[in-house]
Amino acid sequence: MRSSTRGNVDPFIVMDVMEAARAAEDAGRSIIHMEVGQPGTGAPIAALEALKADLETPLGYTVGLGLPALRRRIAQHYGDIYDVDLDPGRVVVTAGASGAFVLAFSALFDNGERVGLGLPCYPSYRQILKAMGLQPVEIETRARGRYQPQPEDIAAHDLAGLIVASPANPTGTMLNKGELTALADACSSRDAALISDEIYHGIGYGTRAVSALEVTQDTYVINSFSKYFSMTGWRCGWMVVPQDHVRTVERLAQNMFICASHASQRLALHAMDCRDELDANLSVYQANRTLLLDGLAQAGFDTIAPPDGAFYIYADISAHSDDSRAMAADILDKAGVAVTPGLDFDPIHGHRWLRFSYAGRTADMAEGLERLRRYMAARG
Amino acid sequence: MRSSTRGNVDPFIVMDVMEAARAAEDAGRSIIHMEVGQPGTGAPIAALEALKADLETPLGYTVGLGLPALRRRIAQHYGDIYDVDLDPGRVVVTAGASGAFVLAFSALFDNGERVGLGLPCYPSYRQILKAMGLQPVEIETRARGRYQPQPEDIAAHDLAGLIVASPANPTGTMLNKGELTALADACSSRDAALISDEIYHGIGYGTRAVSALEVTQDTYVINSFSKYFSMTGWRCGWMVVPQDHVRTVERLAQNMFICASHASQRLALHAMDCRDELDANLSVYQANRTLLLDGLAQAGFDTIAPPDGAFYIYADISAHSDDSRAMAADILDKAGVAVTPGLDFDPIHGHRWLRFSYAGRTADMAEGLERLRRYMAARG
Repeated sequence: MRSSTRGNVDPFIVMDVMEAARAAEDAGRSIIHMEVGQPGTGAPIAALEALKADLETPLGYTVGLGLPALRRRIAQHYGDIYDVDLDPGRVVVTAGASGAFVLAFSALFDNGERVGLGLPCYPSYRQILKAMGLQPVEIETRARGRYQPQPEDIAAHDLAGLIVASPANPTGTMLNKGELTALADACSSRDAALISDEIYHGIGYGTRAVSALEVTQDTYVINSFSKYFSMTGWRCGWMVVPQDHVRTVERLAQNMFICASHASQRLALHAMDCRDELDANLSVYQANRTLLLDGLAQAGFDTIAPPDGAFYIYADISAHSDDSRAMAADILDKAGVAVTPGLDFDPIHGHRWLRFSYAGRTADMAEGLERLRRYMAARG
Repeated sequence: MRSSTRGNVDPFIVMDVMEAARAAEDAGRSIIHMEVGQPGTGAPIAALEALKADLETPLGYTVGLGLPALRRRIAQHYGDIYDVDLDPGRVVVTAGASGAFVLAFSALFDNGERVGLGLPCYPSYRQILKAMGLQPVEIETRARGRYQPQPEDIAAHDLAGLIVASPANPTGTMLNKGELTALADACSSRDAALISDEIYHGIGYGTRAVSALEVTQDTYVINSFSKYFSMTGWRCGWMVVPQDHVRTVERLAQNMFICASHASQRLALHAMDCRDELDANLSVYQANRTLLLDGLAQAGFDTIAPPDGAFYIYADISAHSDDSRAMAADILDKAGVAVTPGLDFDPIHGHRWLRFSYAGRTADMAEGLERLRRYMAARG
């Protein structure tokens, strides 16, 4: 049967690691998971209890933009956290951040237009762009730019749009207000759309992440309930769009999604009032991060991107290997630790990087570090 | 800020009706809803009870293709209902039928390719196609072809793909095995992809709907838990793809959706074993349909498409009006009944059709018919 060219997107290389990890576990081996990009915790307990009561009445379709109460609560969040006065009418509830990207790309770009992303980055940016008939443009970044795209990249690459993430995946680096402003100005001057992926906001260690909405209203901001709010698997996120894009995005959402899961929207509304439980999760990431910063360096992974936020450490392994895929496989095989090869995030330089996730339990992280230390010592 | 051409899709005309209906209800009027395309019932009660137990453990991401147990259960469903032996490996769990369309179009078509749909049809087909940079090709249909596309349309319109729905929305007409086979053969002979929307399967009245999988394996079959399984709002559906497309669709699903809501997948698995409650819903549709066939004719809506399945009656109003939008507004205003103008489904001939949904409660349907009878009598 026929198939398209654009649908032929790259596989996730980490899937091979996960498959091998599962096979090892099925064979009785103990595996420590430092490859997963999701919290080990579930949705907040009080939110789940409230959802159970909601289940007593039928949960039909919501309107395309999402439950009005949830949109208002998200707008309030921008006041609470960022001191930004946001009109709830600009908030779009989406089927996860993934759904938000599909909507944003549909609303902003026509066939073949060039959309930039700084390497390394979340691999699905370029795969979704490709699947939607757009042209992902990979931008090399540098350590002194915190592995983030620079304002001059927009003109240099003739971009119709730029995706930035702060804190970023896989590096964890953040953009400060000045850097975000410079990127927004550079986009604006060329009529390029700035898409700000803020999915790891709330998972920070000392410095609060800056929202693009603090520097411009001329942007698409994308966020999710999957990370800080620990609602992984419920597929609920949101997007803030310019006022004059709301109607377009509403129509796209009605047609392409109808709505995000109604139950997930209800759960999200409840979860936003569970700060205590969520901040307790955060203190686990904080402890894990401290452990990893110390333990990875001791093991020999001492060249890392600045881990400002999120729950990842991205380590340069070029002192040890120039084949991250082989090294990840070897670490799984010999040490029983699953890690993600950088190639998923960066097809150019990812062969000499590994991503370590510390979203798991602290005891597991400690055990993983001990295994990595022994592995690296044996490797010599 | 910049915006795309393809993102500028048409609004749903029925939204104006729904907005006016809500305003009327807010003002204290009683409105009977014959415009909505969703069951008034919720998910099966036993399934919801089972889901509550599932909530005790964190529901993280599932694999991209969906829970293996749900994929197996769906495959078994094809054995049970259609006597088709289906490999569970070909089943893809999706974020509703909507998510399935996005995946199918990505996997099958490149920018600008022509995809046919017979008018009248579900409006989102053409909007999703447009939003994804593809070219929807509207095919006029005829009463003697049951308002369905014909095999010769594929060559005549130079199609890369064809979407069919049986039972169809808004008409309710079905394709029999011979008709489906002829369409599949015509697609195959021109390397066009046949996409079979089977979302209303299970909602029939005497004749079982034929699945495209009964006549070819060279097709994408799309279905959902929103209609027969009454899980509206949970956004869970599925797709069956040819064996050699599974890997492509898996990668697209991982990147564009990550997965369908985990909770919704669990609920779907439970709902598949709640046939008694679901068949009770069906008997309500059956009673409503009998009422409407009689009552609409009495009121003067006596020219209708063959209502083989689903929960719609599509009526030709040309004896009364050539402006379905104005007539729907007038019916709402004077009779307090919300109905859908045909223009949403058919930009060419929809100005002389109305869709009546009978997915609601039987008492409401009876009251709506009485109001319509009085309205039409007064109209003269």
